[in-house]
Amino acid sequence: MSLITLTTDFGVGSPYVAAMKGVILSLNPAATIVDITHGIPAQDIRQGALVLDQVSRWFPAETIHVAVVDPGVGTERKVICARIGEQFFLAPDNGLLSRLALSTPPSTIVTVTRPEHWLPRVSATFHGRDILAPVAARLSLGLDPGELGGRVDEMVLLNWTEACVSAAKIEGTVQSIDSFGNLITNIPADALANVPRGEETAIVCDEHETRGIFTAYADQPEMTLIALVGSSGHLELAIVGESAAMMLGVRVGTPVTIQW
Amino acid sequence: MSLITLTTDFGVGSPYVAAMKGVILSLNPAATIVDITHGIPAQDIRQGALVLDQVSRWFPAETIHVAVVDPGVGTERKVICARIGEQFFLAPDNGLLSRLALSTPPSTIVTVTRPEHWLPRVSATFHGRDILAPVAARLSLGLDPGELGGRVDEMVLLNWTEACVSAAKIEGTVQSIDSFGNLITNIPADALANVPRGEETAIVCDEHETRGIFTAYADQPEMTLIALVGSSGHLELAIVGESAAMMLGVRVGTPVTIQW
Amino acid sequence: MSLITLTTDFGVGSPYVAAMKGVILSLNPAATIVDITHGIPAQDIRQGALVLDQVSRWFPAETIHVAVVDPGVGTERKVICARIGEQFFLAPDNGLLSRLALSTPPSTIVTVTRPEHWLPRVSATFHGRDILAPVAARLSLGLDPGELGGRVDEMVLLNWTEACVSAAKIEGTVQSIDSFGNLITNIPADALANVPRGEETAIVCDEHETRGIFTAYADQPEMTLIALVGSSGHLELAIVGESAAMMLGVRVGTPVTIQW
Repeated sequence: MSLITLTTDFGVGSPYVAAMKGVILSLNPAATIVDITHGIPAQDIRQGALVLDQVSRWFPAETIHVAVVDPGVGTERKVICARIGEQFFLAPDNGLLSRLALSTPPSTIVTVTRPEHWLPRVSATFHGRDILAPVAARLSLGLDPGELGGRVDEMVLLNWTEACVSAAKIEGTVQSIDSFGNLITNIPADALANVPRGEETAIVCDEHETRGIFTAYADQPEMTLIALVGSSGHLELAIVGESAAMMLGVRVGTPVTIQW
Repeated sequence: MSLITLTTDFGVGSPYVAAMKGVILSLNPAATIVDITHGIPAQDIRQGALVLDQVSRWFPAETIHVAVVDPGVGTERKVICARIGEQFFLAPDNGLLSRLALSTPPSTIVTVTRPEHWLPRVSATFHGRDILAPVAARLSLGLDPGELGGRVDEMVLLNWTEACVSAAKIEGTVQSIDSFGNLITNIPADALANVPRGEETAIVCDEHETRGIFTAYADQPEMTLIALVGSSGHLELAIVGESAAMMLGVRVGTPVTIQW
Repeated sequence: MSLITLTTDFGVGSPYVAAMKGVILSLNPAATIVDITHGIPAQDIRQGALVLDQVSRWFPAETIHVAVVDPGVGTERKVICARIGEQFFLAPDNGLLSRLALSTPPSTIVTVTRPEHWLPRVSATFHGRDILAPVAARLSLGLDPGELGGRVDEMVLLNWTEACVSAAKIEGTVQSIDSFGNLITNIPADALANVPRGEETAIVCDEHETRGIFTAYADQPEMTLIALVGSSGHLELAIVGESAAMMLGVRVGTPVTIQW
């Protein structure tokens, strides 16, 4: 398998991404490289962790995912290679893999410490190009991850608040906002198994309320606030044909309550 | 042929696009995937239809084009696979292929109804990932489009206003605006065959007027409004070195008249 | 080798880029195409030249780099193919390759004049698609660059101000600004060999001053102005965790002085 993905906060269109691709293709001209996104807000490790968790599952076994949201580059923070499920993840050890690790604990984690697999000259400010890219290329050529450095037992974990489910109430928060302005919560579809879908159920976000849980955006007329289970498998609030984030002024972290 | 293109309104840098690519590469690791654009304005089917029409022609025979601008996802709207010219097009049946179909009527259209070619679990909100991506991958592996579902005779057609050509006058409209702010009209180069190129010809857009039809942007000095036949084969209005859209405040739909 | 890169000012997400890719893949379906960036500010030849210089070096020998920042498209300006180092560069002859040529003089330059290698119909406004893309594809298939047209001795050179190094002072300027808002100067790491790294060294940019030259962004606390050698090998000014460009209101061309 020579499929490598890239997830960074370099900015969409950043030429830094191309430098990483050049390094990868110099070592493995047959690698297939896919951009997951380079639009993670600068240094927003949590958002990077969420995107990796939501998107990596759609890739085949043995995919090598490289993630660079790395405010601590050049300091003592480690770079790790984790085997999670049937895929590999290369990232700074700053919590970027911790959302994934929540649902699927890594089977092995190694610290990337052996410089013979890196570029000959390593800058202090761009380990994505100088360490992660060449290491990903070598893994795609069959290098055993055990060769990268010593095995460790732990990685940095961020605190991920789970939705709180009680008898007739679920309390969660807005966890991310997509490019349509849809508000994606941390309330998974599973938690909604016993929640009635009709008018008797109220979904409240900030001072805004909507009733009922629907299936498709088009189930309600334009400009209506609607609750539904989105494509990431979580409860989502949307305004049909508009950006809910913009119209409601809602941000990541805003509480969302379901009551019935 | 295993060339697949993607055209969506997901937003440039959207990780949703990567989920589609992961699905395609899981089924056909040898597929070559090219992004046409993910910057179609949200739910702007007409703009998606125009881009598909302008860009798909530059791709080789047997390319599989996947287009997702899909406000009706999860409702009764159909998904279709159309053979247009020598290429395949997969899209929701909402008019997205209707601009293409205007110049080249589809030779066959099938509705995509057989779930054995989709992902095992289909969400109500992301058919791009759950239906269109796996179907594109299977077509690229040689699946006969006839296997996707039943043949139909029609697709949803949008109303595309043609420029109106008379003795000494052509009346058209601004049909799209490119990233340079150039105003691209619905007046094709063919319609200009008998139009004099010199000062005697006036091109009027809103309250703005320019005289003569030129060949290159640099044929006029900076900051000048210029009319020329652009790379899409249509009359275009540009301000040399600037954004005509921004400076003139012109939008899609604004009338453009040529008089001589 | 069939690796082709694209650098343009078409705008991130522009469908014009896809037209070029379609043309390349029609001629060479096995080509690997990598986007360097399409976010060069419209018609900003200098910025395009800087990005090409910084990023192309990370690609393997025999890579074919195509660059299109081309305000003079359709006029008498030439299109050239230059061999620089071990790579090929195709671009309008407007200075776009002149930053590269400063450090590595081209070994050969040919003008691209033989239309048998272009698309059959060449528009006056989009040579990227009609001339450069097919020529790149043919080079990737093994065409001898000497077949493209006649050899020439010179290309258009822009004026690149070098930093001025004296006994206890270096005078340079901000040369580009990256997506993090870091200010990248024209002062190369080499010029800093004898500069003390401690408090005794003052770096002044506009009315802003910082002391000492550091190694990593995280060497200073958040919101601090810091000077360090960035990943492009030049002195860089950054505000930890923020955009220095935005917070200081600094633009390309602003003088930067180091004194000790």
